[in-house]
Amino acid sequence: MSLKIIGLELPNIPWQERPSGNPDVLWRYAQNPVIPRDLIPCSNSIFNSAVVPYGDEFRGVFRVDNKAREMRIHSGKSKDALNWTIEHEPIHFVCDDEEIGNFVYGYDPRVVWIEDRYYVTWCNGYHGPTIGIGYTKDFETFHQLENAFLPFNRNGVLFPRRIGGNFAMVSRPSDNGHTPFGDIFYSESPDMTFWGKHRHVMGTTVGWQSTKIGAGPIPIETSEGWLMIYHGVLTSCNGFVYSVGAALLDLDQPWNVVARTSPYILSPQTYYECVGDVPNVAFPCAALVDSATGRLALYYGGADTVTAVAFGYVQELVQFTKDNSII
Amino acid sequence: MSLKIIGLELPNIPWQERPSGNPDVLWRYAQNPVIPRDLIPCSNSIFNSAVVPYGDEFRGVFRVDNKAREMRIHSGKSKDALNWTIEHEPIHFVCDDEEIGNFVYGYDPRVVWIEDRYYVTWCNGYHGPTIGIGYTKDFETFHQLENAFLPFNRNGVLFPRRIGGNFAMVSRPSDNGHTPFGDIFYSESPDMTFWGKHRHVMGTTVGWQSTKIGAGPIPIETSEGWLMIYHGVLTSCNGFVYSVGAALLDLDQPWNVVARTSPYILSPQTYYECVGDVPNVAFPCAALVDSATGRLALYYGGADTVTAVAFGYVQELVQFTKDNSII
Amino acid sequence: MSLKIIGLELPNIPWQERPSGNPDVLWRYAQNPVIPRDLIPCSNSIFNSAVVPYGDEFRGVFRVDNKAREMRIHSGKSKDALNWTIEHEPIHFVCDDEEIGNFVYGYDPRVVWIEDRYYVTWCNGYHGPTIGIGYTKDFETFHQLENAFLPFNRNGVLFPRRIGGNFAMVSRPSDNGHTPFGDIFYSESPDMTFWGKHRHVMGTTVGWQSTKIGAGPIPIETSEGWLMIYHGVLTSCNGFVYSVGAALLDLDQPWNVVARTSPYILSPQTYYECVGDVPNVAFPCAALVDSATGRLALYYGGADTVTAVAFGYVQELVQFTKDNSII
Amino acid sequence: MSLKIIGLELPNIPWQERPSGNPDVLWRYAQNPVIPRDLIPCSNSIFNSAVVPYGDEFRGVFRVDNKAREMRIHSGKSKDALNWTIEHEPIHFVCDDEEIGNFVYGYDPRVVWIEDRYYVTWCNGYHGPTIGIGYTKDFETFHQLENAFLPFNRNGVLFPRRIGGNFAMVSRPSDNGHTPFGDIFYSESPDMTFWGKHRHVMGTTVGWQSTKIGAGPIPIETSEGWLMIYHGVLTSCNGFVYSVGAALLDLDQPWNVVARTSPYILSPQTYYECVGDVPNVAFPCAALVDSATGRLALYYGGADTVTAVAFGYVQELVQFTKDNSII
Amino acid sequence: MSLKIIGLELPNIPWQERPSGNPDVLWRYAQNPVIPRDLIPCSNSIFNSAVVPYGDEFRGVFRVDNKAREMRIHSGKSKDALNWTIEHEPIHFVCDDEEIGNFVYGYDPRVVWIEDRYYVTWCNGYHGPTIGIGYTKDFETFHQLENAFLPFNRNGVLFPRRIGGNFAMVSRPSDNGHTPFGDIFYSESPDMTFWGKHRHVMGTTVGWQSTKIGAGPIPIETSEGWLMIYHGVLTSCNGFVYSVGAALLDLDQPWNVVARTSPYILSPQTYYECVGDVPNVAFPCAALVDSATGRLALYYGGADTVTAVAFGYVQELVQFTKDNSII
Amino acid sequence: MSLKIIGLELPNIPWQERPSGNPDVLWRYAQNPVIPRDLIPCSNSIFNSAVVPYGDEFRGVFRVDNKAREMRIHSGKSKDALNWTIEHEPIHFVCDDEEIGNFVYGYDPRVVWIEDRYYVTWCNGYHGPTIGIGYTKDFETFHQLENAFLPFNRNGVLFPRRIGGNFAMVSRPSDNGHTPFGDIFYSESPDMTFWGKHRHVMGTTVGWQSTKIGAGPIPIETSEGWLMIYHGVLTSCNGFVYSVGAALLDLDQPWNVVARTSPYILSPQTYYECVGDVPNVAFPCAALVDSATGRLALYYGGADTVTAVAFGYVQELVQFTKDNSII
Repeated sequence: MSLKIIGLELPNIPWQERPSGNPDVLWRYAQNPVIPRDLIPCSNSIFNSAVVPYGDEFRGVFRVDNKAREMRIHSGKSKDALNWTIEHEPIHFVCDDEEIGNFVYGYDPRVVWIEDRYYVTWCNGYHGPTIGIGYTKDFETFHQLENAFLPFNRNGVLFPRRIGGNFAMVSRPSDNGHTPFGDIFYSESPDMTFWGKHRHVMGTTVGWQSTKIGAGPIPIETSEGWLMIYHGVLTSCNGFVYSVGAALLDLDQPWNVVARTSPYILSPQTYYECVGDVPNVAFPCAALVDSATGRLALYYGGADTVTAVAFGYVQELVQFTKDNSII
Repeated sequence: MSLKIIGLELPNIPWQERPSGNPDVLWRYAQNPVIPRDLIPCSNSIFNSAVVPYGDEFRGVFRVDNKAREMRIHSGKSKDALNWTIEHEPIHFVCDDEEIGNFVYGYDPRVVWIEDRYYVTWCNGYHGPTIGIGYTKDFETFHQLENAFLPFNRNGVLFPRRIGGNFAMVSRPSDNGHTPFGDIFYSESPDMTFWGKHRHVMGTTVGWQSTKIGAGPIPIETSEGWLMIYHGVLTSCNGFVYSVGAALLDLDQPWNVVARTSPYILSPQTYYECVGDVPNVAFPCAALVDSATGRLALYYGGADTVTAVAFGYVQELVQFTKDNSII
Repeated sequence: MSLKIIGLELPNIPWQERPSGNPDVLWRYAQNPVIPRDLIPCSNSIFNSAVVPYGDEFRGVFRVDNKAREMRIHSGKSKDALNWTIEHEPIHFVCDDEEIGNFVYGYDPRVVWIEDRYYVTWCNGYHGPTIGIGYTKDFETFHQLENAFLPFNRNGVLFPRRIGGNFAMVSRPSDNGHTPFGDIFYSESPDMTFWGKHRHVMGTTVGWQSTKIGAGPIPIETSEGWLMIYHGVLTSCNGFVYSVGAALLDLDQPWNVVARTSPYILSPQTYYECVGDVPNVAFPCAALVDSATGRLALYYGGADTVTAVAFGYVQELVQFTKDNSII
Repeated sequence: MSLKIIGLELPNIPWQERPSGNPDVLWRYAQNPVIPRDLIPCSNSIFNSAVVPYGDEFRGVFRVDNKAREMRIHSGKSKDALNWTIEHEPIHFVCDDEEIGNFVYGYDPRVVWIEDRYYVTWCNGYHGPTIGIGYTKDFETFHQLENAFLPFNRNGVLFPRRIGGNFAMVSRPSDNGHTPFGDIFYSESPDMTFWGKHRHVMGTTVGWQSTKIGAGPIPIETSEGWLMIYHGVLTSCNGFVYSVGAALLDLDQPWNVVARTSPYILSPQTYYECVGDVPNVAFPCAALVDSATGRLALYYGGADTVTAVAFGYVQELVQFTKDNSII
Repeated sequence: MSLKIIGLELPNIPWQERPSGNPDVLWRYAQNPVIPRDLIPCSNSIFNSAVVPYGDEFRGVFRVDNKAREMRIHSGKSKDALNWTIEHEPIHFVCDDEEIGNFVYGYDPRVVWIEDRYYVTWCNGYHGPTIGIGYTKDFETFHQLENAFLPFNRNGVLFPRRIGGNFAMVSRPSDNGHTPFGDIFYSESPDMTFWGKHRHVMGTTVGWQSTKIGAGPIPIETSEGWLMIYHGVLTSCNGFVYSVGAALLDLDQPWNVVARTSPYILSPQTYYECVGDVPNVAFPCAALVDSATGRLALYYGGADTVTAVAFGYVQELVQFTKDNSII
Repeated sequence: MSLKIIGLELPNIPWQERPSGNPDVLWRYAQNPVIPRDLIPCSNSIFNSAVVPYGDEFRGVFRVDNKAREMRIHSGKSKDALNWTIEHEPIHFVCDDEEIGNFVYGYDPRVVWIEDRYYVTWCNGYHGPTIGIGYTKDFETFHQLENAFLPFNRNGVLFPRRIGGNFAMVSRPSDNGHTPFGDIFYSESPDMTFWGKHRHVMGTTVGWQSTKIGAGPIPIETSEGWLMIYHGVLTSCNGFVYSVGAALLDLDQPWNVVARTSPYILSPQTYYECVGDVPNVAFPCAALVDSATGRLALYYGGADTVTAVAFGYVQELVQFTKDNSII
């Protein structure tokens, strides 16, 4: 393998080999969904969630919509990243500032280790959706920082290390509703409080990514660039369809797109992706990667109802992105 | 059981016990749907229908959309309230006034015994949707009275007795389309012809009941208040989702809400609720109750296509409503 | 004059003769607007208002939008119906029921003498616009009754006497916004509290009355039928245009339309009708009529900003309606 | 059989008899879908496609949306019209005019033999959707002609012979989006280049065909008129529902409708019609007919994802259309 | 003057010289509007009209909206092209085909002499707006031909001679409402009945022409190309604004745009352009040109209410178009 | 005068005394508009502009829409702040970063002296509207910095000094169209590059400020708090109406609102505010204040077409805000 994946050793990554005859660059876990909608008593649905290695176990932050259909974030843990135990109570973020810490709603979290702690970002309700930032060191106590941006924003995803000396984040400026548009932008911060140097990364094109796009898992650093798995939305006469694609971003100037898949790499086709609270949604939020083997386990929400996993090899995904690029 | 349910003896109520391990306050009939979409030759779908005890049998009025997708109301009968015979021809209402009796469309009926007859209300087409009122004594001859209100209105549901000397009805003022808003109001009438003393009962909140709400079955009189099961609607990026909740209304001033569930008590999760002419709809229109045991059989439409039943105990439902109230 | 006008002697009606060469059935008062937008300190605009004879003077209820752009109703008086004194404070309605009496907003009032008092109707804010009803005997103390209808309704206009033993009202069911549709309906009440026997009167057609219509002044009883002056709305690419037309309704069954003007009888063409808070609005709310001469003074709002008057003869207007009818 | 079907001998038509007890005029192929979404490597979905007899085999043009969700047309062949081989590359149309031949997108093709060749029509992207026309003699080389109409148009369907000396086509004028309206029109051309003599054929009515309608397969010539199978669309609160109906058009003046089904003859009810990229779609594009037996095999898209077949008898369908006509 | 204008001698063209100090390429007639809204008894407004030389006099076809706000076309005549006599009755088109000749509505006419007669085109109501075609030889008898296109279309403007042997027309495909989009297309016909060879000419850009565009007067043939004056529309938060621009089209392939003004050449700024039935509209429909002097009199509608004239020199306008082109 | 105004000595402020009998807190300059739409050759309109004292003269940045209706910013100068000379060419911002310096569009500028230079903010086109920041020391050379925020944002207004050690700005998050919503937020920056600590300041209420609000001139520091003049928008059936109000913000925590006017302090009522490119707009962008006398000259755009001035006293305005507050 000539492609180098930077710093993501994960010998115990959950894994199933590609089914015989399956030509796709990603293939689904045969036992999907890994997390059913009703795993905990209060849950209407558990989806669009993020997981990370934690010692030789796994931890995660999970979007749990309760039976009032309120959007909450819960923490959870697992030994194999497939069987999860999720806290019955939502995360309570400790926050110095009363107004910022006043929880309204939170959804679609991401989690990433940077330097000395796990940072969590999520779509945070503060007079509209914006990007909330918090951190934890143990997945028991969570601290909330300032919101990164003014409303309206969604899908704020941190890079796993500083770029040019600053923290770096991609996000998708939105409106205050279901947002029928949306491009991916890049921003930097010296301190996780003040954000600037905003750059446009990429916009919508045609087909499955013609309405809006948004970053998914934490970008994966490779010798060929940042591998950013993202979702794209198509608007049919019956609503939005969420599929999954991939892009390669320049390592130093991530707002420069090196390659980007013309086809999707996963689209809603199974029952648990097509039938549920929001039909026809495959929404990726996290990836586990083993740099030694290139194995990748992609965690994504199905039909805004359950959590599913798909597998692939990073090197194949990078190659596929370059071979099928619209750039 | 300290809760008293007023006047609804029904020893032969259809019934299945709660499945082992099911923690929900309502549970589905295992043989759902009880009425398939194609029960009678002309039917495209049979849903959002209402049933009542009739002697030791059962009678009902049924929303039947025919294969032109015209909305009609049919009468039907059953010995066990699970196996139904539905008339192949729609109800023909006898009406003194030619203009009122000119049937345009009718849907989502409710039926209730008050004093000396069964009253039927439904969404009646008269230059837009409004609340039609009729009555029958034998489910063979049906008489139509004046429409209760000016257009535009839906989900008009009578109380089973006079309140303050007047007939009483809740309804949901609407517009002439799919209506992206809607609160429940209360009105009175001395004579089923003239209506007034309109009071706002309750509006939308968040989550599953954030777009609009509407009363379902005839309110159930209990010592704690009127138990009103109702539907609430959430708007996802792919359309409306109809779930079911419950409220307790003051016995004498039903426009005063005593308690109201924050979580739904049933939401569309099964195939027959999620897949059909309108995906993701659970729409309650009737309840059979046995006051001696508190057993409740809730009749609701699934996916605007079939009729389903769920079971529960009134006393548990009242307690759940109080324990999970957003009031 | 063979046409008989019933019971509206008004020797001191304000009046200007038709300008030489003007062929129109209505002609504008040369000193329009009669009420400027800033007549009283708090007023942003004074328009869509109603006046009646009162002894040998005149009284009225006036839509006054204050400088917060809140919609209020004020009372006023005049000796000649052209020069008005308007109270600086809004009308405070005395009401037995706290919830009904809780003023939210009120606009577009009408006023009429029936039997023993002056009744006022207006668009009343109660969880959306509906028809408020009140009465006064002296234009100093005003009492508020129950709202006539459930929301959403506007342009509720009472007939000046009972019909078939009941009070009678036309109104225009609406939605909770700017309402891009709307027909005129008729309803009756035995007691001004409970309303029913709803009948469709007339709907939209083409051109100036293609979007929605609504009754204007109190209908004028004539030997040929009720003369109902109404507004119609056309939707251009730049919004709504409000013009004025006339209809003749059957005396005993006012929901039967005898004649209805195809052309408008007045449309926004002057500066004070075309330029203001809402451009291109001529909105009639009241008419003074002298049955002896047939003189008619029509009061209407201009551009939702000022109050204007136009003159005509009832007999000419009836004839015009019959000669130019689309019925 | 007194009904005569003109010139469609097809002894090897694919066929299954009506299942016992099935009262419907059309019944589904038990092995549906006949073409799965992933038949060829690039395909996201294969649906809304057209087939014709070709010698004693079959040929077709197929809507294939690739995994970029770009809309393309592919050719294919089959010996039994049930098992299809589809080219992996889209059709490349040879065109004299560079601007017309510049392919943007193409979908929903129809194919018909007229005089000396197979003509193909499809929804062609040229500054918006319009009707592209091409022809082939061997399903290997395809030639593209001028677009029939200005944008915006969809569902252009040729008649199988000249009418009144001209080529004839029905089509559905549209807008540049998902088009919430649409009637069927008829046009003629002396030369397949210039089109005129446009006539309105039929519009929307109620129920399943209340939003828009569009022709499906090539009209079938019978002694009672042209049998035109078409789709109709209903708008629920969750989007469009596409069903199938039938009409009889006058043989010489096809813009005169002889009969038209009030009920649908097929509506989306199976999993493969209700679940997929666009839920609740049954969209017919082709029919194979054997005039000797009257057997008909209707090809239609399911959920904008797969291709399905339904069977029936032309004579029964004509009779049903006449017996259940809304004309 | 090196620019040659082809065949438009008009010694008696109406004319005022450019006011001193006015730098604009077009300047308004000081006595605008030339036609007031109430010139004839039935007229609500007279605008968007077309005029031609006729012997040594002038004739025209006029959009007259009557006081029902129905859209009609009237003929008129003038000796100086400034003072007009307009027929009180609309044009009655003689038509062989009853369905085509059945007048629904007509507006925004253009008129042009081709070969042996005056052709009239207009926006014609036939199940939606399309392009009606008629002709006259004397402006007394008018004949109606087939509609050029299927709905939905507006602003169909003929070229004054055949191009490549065919009649030629530009038009603006539309939808069935106020149409928030629209490009100019070119089509040809051998016989004024069948139309084809459709080509895209030009689309929207930014600013005053960012929403839609449409051809205005008959294109003026010059040695530099066809001078096409057109309207462009900007959408402000208060609706559409119609301004005027100019383009040069290739003489032989008019779908090739040689030059096109970036700035408008006239925009609504006067009272009669800003205040009226539709504020902020300047809509050109005709031009009189004297090829000897290059004088041009542009006729345009003001605020969809009155008819106005502006003056300029063709050679200056061509030069301005080339100097300020966005091509 | 007990109120202290901080640091705004301006002895040569333009001034007219309040007209006799005028009770309003602001009164218009009698010679309005001070800047006509066509002051410079390219200008379609000049409005929503900002001015500052500069030595004993004045300088400004002006929104100039050219005759292509492109939005540009020009610099200008004046000796009396009433008679302005505006550069014929737009400002060219010097920028180190090519992508940021690539001008797309700019409008609605504000200008303020902070510490050592004049900062300019404006609505800057960068993949949607956001807040551009630049600075000048001489109004001849302008430098552009990073955009403050991600799209979509408008009405970014800097405070005239650091607060809590940081630069401070209010802005109004928006969407990518005409934005039917919008609240005012507060943000801080240590360096004019990175922005954070976002706080909600105030939202919409009713009447004239029910749709959206946005800050106008640079906040005026007084002993009672920051006096922030802002615009509010009401949506009538004919579009947006922009009026002017005032608020007092806490000096140290400007996101805490001390007082806020319930009535507007200026609304569009004159011809130049009601008639123009966008009717019914009064949009304030700058204020000149003399702290010795409290005189205030408010610069605002009229009808998105011209620039106007109104006068008042700061102390009266502060008192009015407190006396008429909705807080």
